[in-house]
Amino acid sequence: MNTPLRLGIAGLGTVGIGVVKIVQMHADMLARRAGRPIEIVAVSASSRTKKRSADISVYGWEDDPVALGRRDDIDVVLELIGGENGTAKALVETALANGKDVVTANKALLAHHGHALALAAEEAGQVLRFEAAVAGGIPVIKALTEGLAGNRIGRVMGVMNGTCNYILTRMEATGQGYNVLFDECARLGYLEADPNLDVGGIDAGHKLSLLSAIAFGAQVDFHSVELQGITDISLDDIRLARDMGFAIKLLGVAQMTGRGLEQRMTPCLVPETHPLGQLDGGTNMVVIEGDSVGQIVLRGAGAGEGPTASAVMSDVIDIARGLRLPTFGEPATGLVRRPAAVVSAAAPWYLRMTLLDKPGALAKIATVLGEAGISIHRMRQYSHDDALAPVLIVTHKAASDDIRHALARFEATGVLVGEPVALRIEEV
Amino acid sequence: MNTPLRLGIAGLGTVGIGVVKIVQMHADMLARRAGRPIEIVAVSASSRTKKRSADISVYGWEDDPVALGRRDDIDVVLELIGGENGTAKALVETALANGKDVVTANKALLAHHGHALALAAEEAGQVLRFEAAVAGGIPVIKALTEGLAGNRIGRVMGVMNGTCNYILTRMEATGQGYNVLFDECARLGYLEADPNLDVGGIDAGHKLSLLSAIAFGAQVDFHSVELQGITDISLDDIRLARDMGFAIKLLGVAQMTGRGLEQRMTPCLVPETHPLGQLDGGTNMVVIEGDSVGQIVLRGAGAGEGPTASAVMSDVIDIARGLRLPTFGEPATGLVRRPAAVVSAAAPWYLRMTLLDKPGALAKIATVLGEAGISIHRMRQYSHDDALAPVLIVTHKAASDDIRHALARFEATGVLVGEPVALRIEEV
Repeated sequence: MNTPLRLGIAGLGTVGIGVVKIVQMHADMLARRAGRPIEIVAVSASSRTKKRSADISVYGWEDDPVALGRRDDIDVVLELIGGENGTAKALVETALANGKDVVTANKALLAHHGHALALAAEEAGQVLRFEAAVAGGIPVIKALTEGLAGNRIGRVMGVMNGTCNYILTRMEATGQGYNVLFDECARLGYLEADPNLDVGGIDAGHKLSLLSAIAFGAQVDFHSVELQGITDISLDDIRLARDMGFAIKLLGVAQMTGRGLEQRMTPCLVPETHPLGQLDGGTNMVVIEGDSVGQIVLRGAGAGEGPTASAVMSDVIDIARGLRLPTFGEPATGLVRRPAAVVSAAAPWYLRMTLLDKPGALAKIATVLGEAGISIHRMRQYSHDDALAPVLIVTHKAASDDIRHALARFEATGVLVGEPVALRIEEV
Repeated sequence: MNTPLRLGIAGLGTVGIGVVKIVQMHADMLARRAGRPIEIVAVSASSRTKKRSADISVYGWEDDPVALGRRDDIDVVLELIGGENGTAKALVETALANGKDVVTANKALLAHHGHALALAAEEAGQVLRFEAAVAGGIPVIKALTEGLAGNRIGRVMGVMNGTCNYILTRMEATGQGYNVLFDECARLGYLEADPNLDVGGIDAGHKLSLLSAIAFGAQVDFHSVELQGITDISLDDIRLARDMGFAIKLLGVAQMTGRGLEQRMTPCLVPETHPLGQLDGGTNMVVIEGDSVGQIVLRGAGAGEGPTASAVMSDVIDIARGLRLPTFGEPATGLVRRPAAVVSAAAPWYLRMTLLDKPGALAKIATVLGEAGISIHRMRQYSHDDALAPVLIVTHKAASDDIRHALARFEATGVLVGEPVALRIEEV
């Protein structure tokens, strides 16, 4: 039998326990596939005696997770603690410096320190892999880094926060408002301790920044991701968008443009006939567009014990098999700092506003749009009982700056009631 | 700069030329990602002087493709000739025996000789990879062999023949019959030289047998794949299935059951709300179910120059990066010959028949079903102008044998007009 691959697991929450279960349950299968046994040597978590759904008493124990990074009897450290700084970061750095490979599920850590850690791994001659950090069980890091490596990537898109997609699709299905669904998610335990990580788009933005780095040979640059959460999405918009043939998704988009690297995680309209528009509930989806392959769509569970542990094991098995890839698919020393696109690529926009129902109101709005160089593709004015006319406009392609200017000038027309809503329509 | 990886390409049809273009167009990008330059050393095809969309004059030439397998200046042979025997097989065997790695897009070759060739590769210490053989540009071999390697696979499903899916979805969209669409495909060049490879399900069956081998640690066993093409699917069935909320797809299903390995490539009904049911046109889709990951869906172009060349390059880059995997994900010597399941797993069935419109006709059919142990979940009798009553039945789960017995006994009731149609409903 070949030499076993010896794991140290830091963090025994949902993901860590999921990994322990797979290793225990499928030892023979893993050894066959990996070409060598995969063994857990030692673990670390906040409590040793807490009741868990897998027996960890047979493994070594460290009170300090960072100590796993120094043990001589460990080949690979699994960092499943989470958090962008503190223990997780110290552990990854220590493990790499001590000649261990590292597998992590920690998107926040990599979004903030991914480039530095990739450099550290490279200098140490170790690998640092993170399949579980993006879109849970979907093998998207592998697809992008390896499966589509022959392609110049044009665009990467994704619905990568299950909670947000659950809220948006349940709003439409049940006719309930955002706040009701948010509370439901809180009750169901679907939200991070800081819910803004979910509904503010930050968690999904972390993931997008990692995909960008691989796709465009760039240093991870989370701070340039344009972030907008779903807290302002109303049931009205969801329904009116549907009426025009679209679904509203918290959509991540990364693409290289003539003006630099564009990274957005914002609510967008997508056609209801595209797989992105058809994605219901907590499922994740990533869409990758390559110059040779065209459009590849990957769909699966974005979170949970089994799916996330499956992704961690994929990295572990790769290491056992001897695959030694740079963290972001090419040497970190060669990754460039791509300038961030300040203005995003032109797109059609969905505009919703309420006008005073008086002669010439719509004309004033149309004039503002025309003066901003924005032409109207479709317009609907809905019937109404009071003196307020709901108006919905789908524009032809327009620059986001032009849209912003037009919105700013709507105020002065004196015909608008309340704030207009502007959502980008992503052409897929 | 590291040592280049030197390719010999046999076959300069659509796929071969696609590969040449990628290597020429993206030399720098490939070298960065692969960690070493990727170079084409020599090529072989039926004609050297034929007009092609890429310049091959800079490469060495072999009249006999098998000679590529013997050249000392080649590391990897790309077998892009096709065909289950003859030159393709001789080339792969020669290349492996001469210490070269092999990348092939040849599903027929592997479906028939995959196990023997995997053994040969293993004995020679070479790798034999085939991402392009299944579902074109979708990185499904990689997903199954590597990305989901931590999972016990429960079921693999797929729509893997774009031509069949094009015909079925166009029938519904245009209201034209099978023969009209078949002729359209012939005109558009969508059909293999032997169209039965497409519409008879053989090509897709080849692909399924390769996925099965990886998923279930089995020796490739194409001959046990239950094959049924789409030639008998009528517009009526497509419409009636839709009326019940289903789409008809030529669906491949492989799963381990208590009775052995079940492999089917047959027309099935799938729910119109599932991604499989929403798949229109020539696109491919593979669905993989693992015990930890749940259901993963992969969608993309299943054929064409760019997508297939993208898949070939994925294997080439893997080899350049030093990834050395057994052909079917675990050592070929350990792959077992799984007994084929003679009876497929129980499922609901769609039954359509035309009855003489006379008292007791439906009762006789219901009696036959009841006696066969088949219970009815939904039944519809459609209005009719003549003396013939179209009847549609969706059963509860039933064994395929029981369905067959019932169908055989319908004849004796004397109330049936023509042949009944029975299609399995795959629960997804």
